[in-house]
Amino acid sequence: MAEDRNNSVGIVQTKTVRVVEAESPLKLVSGKTLGPIDVAYESYGKLNPAGDNVILICHALSGSAHAAGFNSPDDKKPGWWDIMIGPGKAIDTNKYFVICSNFLGSCSGTTGPSSINPQTGKPYHLDFPMITIVDMVRVQKLLLDKLGIKQLLCVIGGSMGGMQVLKWTIEFPQIVKSAIVIAATSKLGAQAIAFDAVGRNAIMSDMDADKPSKKGLATARMIGHITYLSEESMREKFGRELRSAEKYSYDLNSEFAVETYLDYQGQIFVDRFDADSYLYITKAMDYFDLEKDFGSLQNAFAKTKSRFMLVSFTSDWLFTPAQSEEMVNALVADRKPVSYCNIASPYGHDAFLLEPKTLGSLISGFISTTFEKPKFAKPATASAIKGVEKIKRVRVDYELIESLIEPNSRVLDAGCGDGQLLLNLQYDKNIIAEGIEVDQQLVLQCVHSGLNIIHRDIERGLGHYPADTFDYAILSQTLQTLKNPKQVFAELLKVAKRVIVSFPNFAYWRCRADLLAGRAPRTKQLPFGWYDTPNIHFLSLKDFEDFCQELGAKIEAKIPLIGNRVSPVKFAPNLFAEQAVYMTSRK
Amino acid sequence: MAEDRNNSVGIVQTKTVRVVEAESPLKLVSGKTLGPIDVAYESYGKLNPAGDNVILICHALSGSAHAAGFNSPDDKKPGWWDIMIGPGKAIDTNKYFVICSNFLGSCSGTTGPSSINPQTGKPYHLDFPMITIVDMVRVQKLLLDKLGIKQLLCVIGGSMGGMQVLKWTIEFPQIVKSAIVIAATSKLGAQAIAFDAVGRNAIMSDMDADKPSKKGLATARMIGHITYLSEESMREKFGRELRSAEKYSYDLNSEFAVETYLDYQGQIFVDRFDADSYLYITKAMDYFDLEKDFGSLQNAFAKTKSRFMLVSFTSDWLFTPAQSEEMVNALVADRKPVSYCNIASPYGHDAFLLEPKTLGSLISGFISTTFEKPKFAKPATASAIKGVEKIKRVRVDYELIESLIEPNSRVLDAGCGDGQLLLNLQYDKNIIAEGIEVDQQLVLQCVHSGLNIIHRDIERGLGHYPADTFDYAILSQTLQTLKNPKQVFAELLKVAKRVIVSFPNFAYWRCRADLLAGRAPRTKQLPFGWYDTPNIHFLSLKDFEDFCQELGAKIEAKIPLIGNRVSPVKFAPNLFAEQAVYMTSRK
Repeated sequence: MAEDRNNSVGIVQTKTVRVVEAESPLKLVSGKTLGPIDVAYESYGKLNPAGDNVILICHALSGSAHAAGFNSPDDKKPGWWDIMIGPGKAIDTNKYFVICSNFLGSCSGTTGPSSINPQTGKPYHLDFPMITIVDMVRVQKLLLDKLGIKQLLCVIGGSMGGMQVLKWTIEFPQIVKSAIVIAATSKLGAQAIAFDAVGRNAIMSDMDADKPSKKGLATARMIGHITYLSEESMREKFGRELRSAEKYSYDLNSEFAVETYLDYQGQIFVDRFDADSYLYITKAMDYFDLEKDFGSLQNAFAKTKSRFMLVSFTSDWLFTPAQSEEMVNALVADRKPVSYCNIASPYGHDAFLLEPKTLGSLISGFISTTFEKPKFAKPATASAIKGVEKIKRVRVDYELIESLIEPNSRVLDAGCGDGQLLLNLQYDKNIIAEGIEVDQQLVLQCVHSGLNIIHRDIERGLGHYPADTFDYAILSQTLQTLKNPKQVFAELLKVAKRVIVSFPNFAYWRCRADLLAGRAPRTKQLPFGWYDTPNIHFLSLKDFEDFCQELGAKIEAKIPLIGNRVSPVKFAPNLFAEQAVYMTSRK
Repeated sequence: MAEDRNNSVGIVQTKTVRVVEAESPLKLVSGKTLGPIDVAYESYGKLNPAGDNVILICHALSGSAHAAGFNSPDDKKPGWWDIMIGPGKAIDTNKYFVICSNFLGSCSGTTGPSSINPQTGKPYHLDFPMITIVDMVRVQKLLLDKLGIKQLLCVIGGSMGGMQVLKWTIEFPQIVKSAIVIAATSKLGAQAIAFDAVGRNAIMSDMDADKPSKKGLATARMIGHITYLSEESMREKFGRELRSAEKYSYDLNSEFAVETYLDYQGQIFVDRFDADSYLYITKAMDYFDLEKDFGSLQNAFAKTKSRFMLVSFTSDWLFTPAQSEEMVNALVADRKPVSYCNIASPYGHDAFLLEPKTLGSLISGFISTTFEKPKFAKPATASAIKGVEKIKRVRVDYELIESLIEPNSRVLDAGCGDGQLLLNLQYDKNIIAEGIEVDQQLVLQCVHSGLNIIHRDIERGLGHYPADTFDYAILSQTLQTLKNPKQVFAELLKVAKRVIVSFPNFAYWRCRADLLAGRAPRTKQLPFGWYDTPNIHFLSLKDFEDFCQELGAKIEAKIPLIGNRVSPVKFAPNLFAEQAVYMTSRK
């Protein structure tokens, strides 16, 4: 662990502060009251004079206030998110003042079922009132009040921590400048509730009147662990390995490595966690339902004022990418600034504790571009703009597209690559920009440029956004690469008032010449072989115009282009244009 | 249930027969011995005089011998697979003699841990010896010997029943004419073992010295139920519905519908099942590992003599489609006759009990084409052959392709559609046919034609088959629709000695004429618009020849074609051919 200590926050103490007195108890969502309430917390870094560098960390089910550093020099393990928090790390304690508190109902210093009930002098046990995620967030707010914190640069949390983040943006919109919601959901689905319910069932089956369950808690934790990992990561980590033998023992003892791992996880958990807390916390998770609370996700987010970044993991089957996407869609429909990345990871739900590189890059890029306005250098000329590496796009159409867009518009760039066009438009036209991009590396690049960027394949559909969510949608050099160009174009025509499309002209004379020579065409705009081209649909200017006719799209502008010459082709464009830019709208 | 009784096998009795006497106990795989052994079984339909119409059903974890019909006139529920077994049903008791027995170690009539241990006069409980899937199958064989059954037309089973089927084909290859393996696996992965282990842990935590667990068994069953359903089906069935209230109760009682469903499933299970049996059976499943037993799956299947059909379900995350595909690949590599269908179903692992239509059609088609040689009517002329509806393929190249193939060859048709070409080849050239097709309906059609058909997207890879598994691979009118034609063609060149390719010629003069008119081409061979064509790569004869050069493929035959004229184009084929057929091989 020596290397950890080099960029560690060092030795930290968990402090405890009373935020609710017994005489004036807190009214909970359930209607019951609770007091006194103590909160355990840790902090790292320094509050700056402006008081605008505070980052609040919300922990997950079994976490604690001890997020980073070591509680004593002999500690073998650092805090639960030490990979993210520290000097020079993603959540940089040289720049930011970081606070993490143990939430209400837990068992690591903050009041919960294992705390002493002042009315009986004994632990609450099952007399503890039911709590909700909102109750937890309100108690966190009381802590910040005590600490004199008036604004939050960012609230961050993974899993159930992400649920708290969501509630922060909704309960205290004025305070939360930005929010990072990782591997979370706006509501548990039936399967996740089912796993929680079986865990609670195991605990309740093993409970004496006065003694919290041990065996049941171990079973519950074992179930939990399976859901935190992915099938793939379990296969990689354990496979069918036997713990210590080559041959089966033909008895009922645990002999597969995965069995002994789960046995161990169950055992160490009962030593550090309280079975009653497990019951209350899982119930709070099951109760969490933004749609139920507000009628719809769009309503839930309507009054938020934060910049959002949501992150999911491809292999997370507990709180799935689809659940994050639902929230992203609601935020876009609400016209809120939102970024989203679905990180390719084999580690399942636990990836939020195990993907320091990609997740760290997203977090640091998002927070720093929220904290400081990103620097922007506008390229000198259109010809100097470099396309992205992976699919070489021709970006000579950028200036033309810019010329079509009114200042202060809301613009969606569908397939925005590194986001250069949106950055140009932000700089020149002060637009509100939203990008969509399928490549994870480019999404990271956009986040570091301070863009709102959604990680998505546009072919998976945009149809759920309300009509006219955007003033403009741009589809630059992408139409011909789509599997279903008709669906994408029709959806863009719905979600934006105007759709700007650019594509290579397949009827360009050089293409025709190649075909006359008996080969599939290769030109500067179409440089690929027939078998490896990303351009899987070939169309000409005339084809596109027929297409608009069929879809009921009105052509508002048409600009055929040759090479880097920005001046439109005037003579026989279907023959001489290498590419074309069209602006269209619904009729 | 009245409608069930109309095509029901009616009232049936579970019989019990002693297959092993106490004096000559059975030696088990573990090395221990067991005796006496009684087996409970049911049978439906009649054994025909030839004795060649016997179907053996193998049941899953919690099943019994009672697969169909009713045990008494008052029975509310029929046997566990009554949707499949009965007069006129998929497993037609008018034609076949159907047997189902309770397996060794279970608790519904066959000897298991709840049976009386003759040495103590008390139930075996944990003194019962460990059993394996092979032990179960050997006991089933003893039952068939008692009944005088000498051959099996088909052995069928889902889930753990499928494991028994696999062992039947390996242990008794001479007897098993065909095998249907549904939602099964050749070995459990780490995640599935983990779920079993947690269930066993819950049971063992709740066990008295002499009394099998009740609460623990309920917990184990609840976990099991989650794994049998899919996330999607749980969402559809339960969502976040509350059992009886509109509002949360804010207590620890079960209140979500999914919770009360699981509570109920747990409760009814403990009334009908034995916790000890649950321990032994899940352990037998965990031990099952054909690769470990034989070194590789290919070795495991090497000596089988059965026709195989494997079936998986898209949403099954317990025993996944990928696990079925592994077995299919091994069987193909072994040059065994195998069909496979991955049924699109939202019902998860339990789909084998819930998809009577598609699964029933597969089962009836497979068994009847095994039982009776399928009728084959060869179409009169090439022009009369109708292409499949979904993607209209031009099949005028069939006769030409036939002319290139030597009799008695092993032929793979990659993208075989309804299998007409393979059927022609079977009829005319006596080939050993294997088809691959991505469309489920067409796969069903092929099964009913008695073809060996694998349900798969060829772009997902064929590279794992050994080199030269086939004498010929055919890629008819498919190359231009592939995302990655290079990979597919290269893989086919490896797995087959010769690859026959046909495709539309994009340099055909009508295409050129269209392009000169400034539009993407539409011809009889290329009848689609630019935006909805399945032809996403355009190539000419010259392009294909360059491509062969690049991939190191030798062109052994080249036949350009116009319309229905089977005589090859002689003059300027790259210009005048509408399509072409090539035969190629590795250099």
